[in-house]
Amino acid sequence: MSTDPAAPAAPADLSGSAGPAAPAPFTADEYRARMARAAESAAEAGLTGLLIAPGPDLVYLTGYRPPTDLERLTLLVLAAGRDPVLVVPALEAPDAHQAPGAAAFTVLDWTDGKDPYALTAPLLAPDGRFAVSDNTWALHLLGLQSRLPGSGYTALTDALPMLRAVKDAREVELLRAAGAAADEAYGEILKVRFAGRAESEVAADLAALLKHFGHSQVDFTIVGSGPNGANPHHEAGSRTIADGDMVVLDFGGLKHGYGSDTTRTVHVGEPSAEERRVHDVVREAQQAGFEAVRPGAACQDVDRAARQVIADAGYGEYFLHRTGHGIGVTTHEPPYLVEGEDRPLVPGMCFSIEPGIYLPGRFGVRIEDIVTVTEEGGRRLNTTGREMAIVE
Amino acid sequence: MSTDPAAPAAPADLSGSAGPAAPAPFTADEYRARMARAAESAAEAGLTGLLIAPGPDLVYLTGYRPPTDLERLTLLVLAAGRDPVLVVPALEAPDAHQAPGAAAFTVLDWTDGKDPYALTAPLLAPDGRFAVSDNTWALHLLGLQSRLPGSGYTALTDALPMLRAVKDAREVELLRAAGAAADEAYGEILKVRFAGRAESEVAADLAALLKHFGHSQVDFTIVGSGPNGANPHHEAGSRTIADGDMVVLDFGGLKHGYGSDTTRTVHVGEPSAEERRVHDVVREAQQAGFEAVRPGAACQDVDRAARQVIADAGYGEYFLHRTGHGIGVTTHEPPYLVEGEDRPLVPGMCFSIEPGIYLPGRFGVRIEDIVTVTEEGGRRLNTTGREMAIVE
Repeated sequence: MSTDPAAPAAPADLSGSAGPAAPAPFTADEYRARMARAAESAAEAGLTGLLIAPGPDLVYLTGYRPPTDLERLTLLVLAAGRDPVLVVPALEAPDAHQAPGAAAFTVLDWTDGKDPYALTAPLLAPDGRFAVSDNTWALHLLGLQSRLPGSGYTALTDALPMLRAVKDAREVELLRAAGAAADEAYGEILKVRFAGRAESEVAADLAALLKHFGHSQVDFTIVGSGPNGANPHHEAGSRTIADGDMVVLDFGGLKHGYGSDTTRTVHVGEPSAEERRVHDVVREAQQAGFEAVRPGAACQDVDRAARQVIADAGYGEYFLHRTGHGIGVTTHEPPYLVEGEDRPLVPGMCFSIEPGIYLPGRFGVRIEDIVTVTEEGGRRLNTTGREMAIVE
Repeated sequence: MSTDPAAPAAPADLSGSAGPAAPAPFTADEYRARMARAAESAAEAGLTGLLIAPGPDLVYLTGYRPPTDLERLTLLVLAAGRDPVLVVPALEAPDAHQAPGAAAFTVLDWTDGKDPYALTAPLLAPDGRFAVSDNTWALHLLGLQSRLPGSGYTALTDALPMLRAVKDAREVELLRAAGAAADEAYGEILKVRFAGRAESEVAADLAALLKHFGHSQVDFTIVGSGPNGANPHHEAGSRTIADGDMVVLDFGGLKHGYGSDTTRTVHVGEPSAEERRVHDVVREAQQAGFEAVRPGAACQDVDRAARQVIADAGYGEYFLHRTGHGIGVTTHEPPYLVEGEDRPLVPGMCFSIEPGIYLPGRFGVRIEDIVTVTEEGGRRLNTTGREMAIVE
């Protein structure tokens, strides 16, 4: 028995393993290619190079996941035509040398008491312009700015928003496997009791199921019942789910380093005619968004296609958010499927399509699949039925 | 049964509760006073004001703990002579209004698609100089710098390192309670079996015990057995603990929002004469550091006192780190007890005193208590025996 009150209970009839062995990690050559492409993209954008702090950009480019002590400078320096350098605290150097991409970068370590910015500055051009990963601490950016007053900086997502957006075949396969695991979790959650239990209990079941099916990290398990489903910001609370409730289930996390994110809206007992109609509209909107996916279409075209269906049905004012977001080593990243995003869809991009209708004080419906762009159009990475499931 | 492989097993003989009810939260007046004092300190340091992103500084100043979506700007703006303003994404505004300190600041919200930096800029002076919390994302700092090219910025820990260092009586009491819980965990861990079990199993026991005794968050559970104890960077691994091993146990986290952090070094079976001697030296060093604590002494004096004992015993080269660090709403923060830190100790400061000796490839010893500065000297917030306990 666990003393951790947050530990979810597993369904008693699930005793299998977390699935087959982990896939082979990406190779140093693959990381080398990613870093080279990033440096080239920076050069094409008129930048001297890229400065990457710990976080998803660093994981993507090097496979290195340092501990969360971010007050000490860890920084990957990339520039076209020179070898990548990873600046790390000396204590972390042994781990950095073990990173999957370590053969593709040089480690430059610094010891406590030394000035890591003075050490890093010679790697940068005094008048260079650099994109820095968004989550780099201000402490570090200010340190570099003070050592190199003639240098300039831009946030990475402003300069190169699509750096991680186009996935290669192995990345798509990892996203597919994560999606399949989330789909298995959905299949099991339909068997649990909803009526009479708190949203937070069903959310704990979902978290346990995601882990059971191989997720190492659960990012969110939204359970929005009745009026709570009408608040797209709601997570899961103490409300007791009742017979007659519509229930939004939106859950995902990371499996083998890549993300899942799917939403289905179920109903406890028989739905009303209006509930059926709203659910149908959202399902049609989701399908319309999916059918708008093809290489060369704009990101915003997917949003427009889904939104049009909802507007035509008279619910336009109740679709409160963008239609989707990218997914990869994180569960939310570019590309964003939103009005105003006119960059084109490219084969290999992977993102959610998740329209919704939210009737304040009453109920909400959202349906979400991860979709990847192929030469022919879109391919769903979630494959469970999108019709309204009836639960008990 | 939990499907979470990380969930630690609880000792079977522990069925009590997590202790008495949570203490009363800090009041809006207390947060108001903290913010006013911070703004005054900034003015005394020649700054226009402070800019505080989500994280421990924001928790300390407002009690507000937003979700971890940090890509959207959330920023507290403090300046002497004007009321505090908290800029938040519109989706978060309802939660911000519920923060314990909400009555002491104004909420200014912004909706997706708007420019939060343009919204924030009028709150700042165009040529102002601001301290920004260290962990503010570069994305946000760059956004402000581009809107206000004449403004200047410094990292908060460079400008006002002691902002959170002096605790009031209620904070000291919360730290004492967290320390008492860690001490209870230590008392229980002495009863478990060490020999034949993996370090990671004992670490899981420690985590379960910390939670059992009321911790909401476990930050670290270091179990360094035999040669692993000689690496102060080691956490807990697959090594099987054996009879005759020295074992470093260093663990802590947050209880009711304040931190614990204590280290004891135990021995499996009878220690050798050398092991006894090294342990005695570290214990004497820890005591010497403790006795150096008094108002007006420099932070580095505590380090020197502990280090001198170890050097005199001939182990100076094997004490590899600073003697201690502050603790409060985080488990590592200023003041740092390290050579070169000549700022004075002030009543209310709380920090670790944790000297160690690390004999490469053989074993390590570290002993750590949290200590608070009083008018009379130091007071320990950990009270378990510091002698070498013998375990099985």
